[in-house]
Amino acid sequence: MRIAQLQMPVYPDKEKNLKQLEDAVRNLCAESGGNKPDLIAAGEMFSCPYETDKFPEYAEPAGGPTWKRLSALAEENGVYLSPGTIPEVDEERRVYNTAFVFDREGHQIARHRKMHLFDIDVQGGQSFRESDTLTAGSDVTVFDTEFGRGGICVCFDFRFPELARLMVLEGAKFILVPAAFNQTTGPAHWDLMFRSRAVDNQCWTIGTSPSMNPEASYHAWGHSMIVSPWGEVVSEMDEIPEYRVIDIDLSETERVRAQLPLLSARREDVYTLKKVK
Amino acid sequence: MRIAQLQMPVYPDKEKNLKQLEDAVRNLCAESGGNKPDLIAAGEMFSCPYETDKFPEYAEPAGGPTWKRLSALAEENGVYLSPGTIPEVDEERRVYNTAFVFDREGHQIARHRKMHLFDIDVQGGQSFRESDTLTAGSDVTVFDTEFGRGGICVCFDFRFPELARLMVLEGAKFILVPAAFNQTTGPAHWDLMFRSRAVDNQCWTIGTSPSMNPEASYHAWGHSMIVSPWGEVVSEMDEIPEYRVIDIDLSETERVRAQLPLLSARREDVYTLKKVK
Repeated sequence: MRIAQLQMPVYPDKEKNLKQLEDAVRNLCAESGGNKPDLIAAGEMFSCPYETDKFPEYAEPAGGPTWKRLSALAEENGVYLSPGTIPEVDEERRVYNTAFVFDREGHQIARHRKMHLFDIDVQGGQSFRESDTLTAGSDVTVFDTEFGRGGICVCFDFRFPELARLMVLEGAKFILVPAAFNQTTGPAHWDLMFRSRAVDNQCWTIGTSPSMNPEASYHAWGHSMIVSPWGEVVSEMDEIPEYRVIDIDLSETERVRAQLPLLSARREDVYTLKKVK
Repeated sequence: MRIAQLQMPVYPDKEKNLKQLEDAVRNLCAESGGNKPDLIAAGEMFSCPYETDKFPEYAEPAGGPTWKRLSALAEENGVYLSPGTIPEVDEERRVYNTAFVFDREGHQIARHRKMHLFDIDVQGGQSFRESDTLTAGSDVTVFDTEFGRGGICVCFDFRFPELARLMVLEGAKFILVPAAFNQTTGPAHWDLMFRSRAVDNQCWTIGTSPSMNPEASYHAWGHSMIVSPWGEVVSEMDEIPEYRVIDIDLSETERVRAQLPLLSARREDVYTLKKVK
């Protein structure tokens, strides 16, 4: 499975961000010499500055103009597209931080609304309250490809071992995480989170961030990365814009699970982890 | 809270191992100039070579001769004692990998029987099957001190995020893990596990291993370590024998939990993690 990660800056201009994504996808596929990526992933809030008051302003419904262009982009290029997240508005004017996934025909095969909103107040560090303008989703999200099942969640969601575990118990062999850690949490916890979730769940973890835009108010950590089921960092960028294509082998999950039985040795007679609904 | 970690070699001679522990505890307390450790911790199977056929041979019941000496050692020195683990045999001749904790009066305040047995078969690496001779326990184990509540589990147990989470949901602010990773899993996952459990659960993690004894069949990784609730490695040894005393501040858990709400932001309306019994 060939994965392309697009670590792009986010500009105040929504159209510029969309165009940047479209150009990147088209160029990657055109320049691939027939060996194009199977899945292309971008970062959290790729089309909207990461500021709470901007989310309602930039929000669009599923099926809206941005959604349609993303769907068309996937179909036109015949790739799975995880464009990161956009602010999504529903019929009741609630706004979500939403990750859509489109298949090679442009059909939406996943919609994950960020389930754990990012409210943080680190002394001398980062402060941010997503819950000021966003509503939380409530679904554990997986989707199928010809390579195997994937899971998807958004940034702060991945802090919670319960959610990653539930996706894997539902069959996920890889987990996409559009994210945007910052200059406080990034150096402290970014690598640790992607490596530990991969090792604990013996799955591939794929974190994609915007690049660090020095002109933005929120300085993303970047460092888009891919970690193997054994915890090896297969790819990690720094904070500058970069497009990178990496081949991963989903069957690695089976090999690791056979050698070190972390999933089958769970003591379900002692503890249970379940979805409420 | 002043913690002493004893990273000691394990010899084939049970009495020699016990004497080594007793001497270490007495010397540490005597040499402390009135500022002795509050809690002293040693590694997994401190009294018995880490070989499956040795576990039944070296096993003793709770209340047996080794247990009595450990209890007396705690009382004599007025310290909490987590002597690592010993093979424990019950009335039906079942053998467990058991971690006892004694309080300053020598009372047993915790008994954790390893709940996830270590059965591993890494290609070109380590193979080991604890379940050949051991029976698994089924209890989540916490205990109280005047500093706050602690949790305890044994080595492979700590691979399972469910168990660490359950101890913390029951109030643990620090988790003791007598352990013995090996030369395959140690470099790959030891630091990662202690750091990620600390960060995810915003608690102190304290892993204590035997030192690497080149003459033993099982080559322990050593690297006894202490990690803060923010994921900082406060102390880490290498693989040689060492006694180290470290002060930790349990109130750090509250500070970190207030800044980054990973426990309170869990979505218990979406997922539940519970003990079965």
